[in-house]
Amino acid sequence: MNQRTAAPFFLDCDTGIDDALALAYLLASPRADLVGIGTVSGNVSAAGGARNTLDLLNLAGHPDIPVAIGAHDPQVGTFHGGAPHVHGDNGIGGVDLVPSDREPVKQTAAELLVQLAHQYAGELRLVAIGPLTNIAEALRLEPQLPQLIAEVTIMGGAALAPGNISPVAEANIANDPEAAAEVLAADWNVTLVPLDVTMTNVLEEHHRQELLATEHPVSQALGEMLGYYFGFYIDIFGRACSAMHDPLAAAIAVRGVELTLAPTVRVQVDTTHGPGRGQTVCDLRGQYAGFPEQRGARCRVVLGIGEDFAPHLLGTLQAAWLTEEQAAAPVA
Amino acid sequence: MNQRTAAPFFLDCDTGIDDALALAYLLASPRADLVGIGTVSGNVSAAGGARNTLDLLNLAGHPDIPVAIGAHDPQVGTFHGGAPHVHGDNGIGGVDLVPSDREPVKQTAAELLVQLAHQYAGELRLVAIGPLTNIAEALRLEPQLPQLIAEVTIMGGAALAPGNISPVAEANIANDPEAAAEVLAADWNVTLVPLDVTMTNVLEEHHRQELLATEHPVSQALGEMLGYYFGFYIDIFGRACSAMHDPLAAAIAVRGVELTLAPTVRVQVDTTHGPGRGQTVCDLRGQYAGFPEQRGARCRVVLGIGEDFAPHLLGTLQAAWLTEEQAAAPVA
Repeated sequence: MNQRTAAPFFLDCDTGIDDALALAYLLASPRADLVGIGTVSGNVSAAGGARNTLDLLNLAGHPDIPVAIGAHDPQVGTFHGGAPHVHGDNGIGGVDLVPSDREPVKQTAAELLVQLAHQYAGELRLVAIGPLTNIAEALRLEPQLPQLIAEVTIMGGAALAPGNISPVAEANIANDPEAAAEVLAADWNVTLVPLDVTMTNVLEEHHRQELLATEHPVSQALGEMLGYYFGFYIDIFGRACSAMHDPLAAAIAVRGVELTLAPTVRVQVDTTHGPGRGQTVCDLRGQYAGFPEQRGARCRVVLGIGEDFAPHLLGTLQAAWLTEEQAAAPVA
Repeated sequence: MNQRTAAPFFLDCDTGIDDALALAYLLASPRADLVGIGTVSGNVSAAGGARNTLDLLNLAGHPDIPVAIGAHDPQVGTFHGGAPHVHGDNGIGGVDLVPSDREPVKQTAAELLVQLAHQYAGELRLVAIGPLTNIAEALRLEPQLPQLIAEVTIMGGAALAPGNISPVAEANIANDPEAAAEVLAADWNVTLVPLDVTMTNVLEEHHRQELLATEHPVSQALGEMLGYYFGFYIDIFGRACSAMHDPLAAAIAVRGVELTLAPTVRVQVDTTHGPGRGQTVCDLRGQYAGFPEQRGARCRVVLGIGEDFAPHLLGTLQAAWLTEEQAAAPVA
């Protein structure tokens, strides 16, 4: 990795199969230097997500990146127990990874984020691909966080697309609407990567076969995990494939994909207890006239990307794995 | 009009420029026999809408159709005063029609609807193109209404399209969400015609010129009204044209246009006081797999129609006006 051109990244996640893909992508991208990871309950518990993250880092040969366990419960209510029907009981599709002997750091995810935001002041990019509980907590711990963080990219919400855990709500936001409302109201510019693009850029079975055929332990593990994930998505798409929520958000954060439609608009999170709870209410009424500027709007909502994402994702992963192999090969 | 093939229709409206187009369409369609009209506050007050309706019926040569004034206020709160910026102070773009000397009937709109539902039991088709206050009142007056009415078509809501009076809410529904919730929860099948199709089927300036060039008093009046309406829509579409909310609902009710995408799904109206108030929360999560059947779903949500609507609308109006002219011409 070329540290001179790579920006420092903090990943907040709930690892999760697509989180594992996002993590692998950030490790592989020459534009990202992953300096810390926090976990939050979502696809699995915060502690379970940290375990998966440590094991994946170990498998990927990155034992140096600190992992901090974050919030177990959302701001209102308690953790619902995860999504084993989507991600398997262990969060990574039942795949058994070699257990890492590393432990999470003693800090909470919010504390680690605040520490790294100071250490990389003005440079740190935050990618949040789970519920936003830790990020809201970090904003309360350090009210200057919006000035310290360079960029925030969030996988979450649904703008004009249907939701995935209610007709209008996406799981990351709906798992902690109050935290999401705080994060989107904070004094920073946010790029929101909603279901509108993550459900329309899918990984197909031939992509999965390509991962399974690649001689790298992370590639094989991802291919196996995706077998489980594809099983869930058969009911959604009518065929074996999967959405790519989290890796797409990671790729957008590293500017790996071109955005063709991403208006900056007002976004409000529904924190009522009505049928809209957890919805990201995006003001897209300007769509018929090319989205005129909205005063006070600070959330860029990604509605379209310019290329087929799967080849970029696989290409980035495989380029990194090939480089590793070449570096490890004995000099001829 | 061929009464033998025409179904009896009740129109509930808030006349309104596009309501005037819907009224003209129902009068013109050989498949519709308009037997009663109720008015409700929305674009204008219920009383103002009745005045406009009586004047339009007079101009169109249909002085026989009873018009009943319905609810002035929604179920919660009071009438907001209308939408003069969209429809003009008088609701019909400031156009002065020859005043009819007829008065509304003594009954309320809900009472007239219930009476006609009994008179045309099992046959009456209800087209509601304003807030749903009168329809909810009619359901309370006559709990058997769903068994008496043959079909209900509602212009209202936004499924995947943005709203028009909030980021997610459409005006008819949002003007009385509590009434809309009652109507959509009642034991009948409803066809909902939301902004998803009414904002994508527009009337252009050349269509308006066609109306102005047609030698019929209703055509001229509609053309003039649309001048005002187009002025409002310049900011929305970036050019002089207009959505065709109400006439499209009327045409769908008479089966004048083919539906290419209209899944029957669960729809819930947001009656909270949060940012989603008045939203029609349509469960369209099945869209990626071709909308599998939803148990208990009774609302058909129109998301696509098969043709360009404006030519059908103008063609229907002009065919009727030509027939009138021929009938009125002296025998050669």
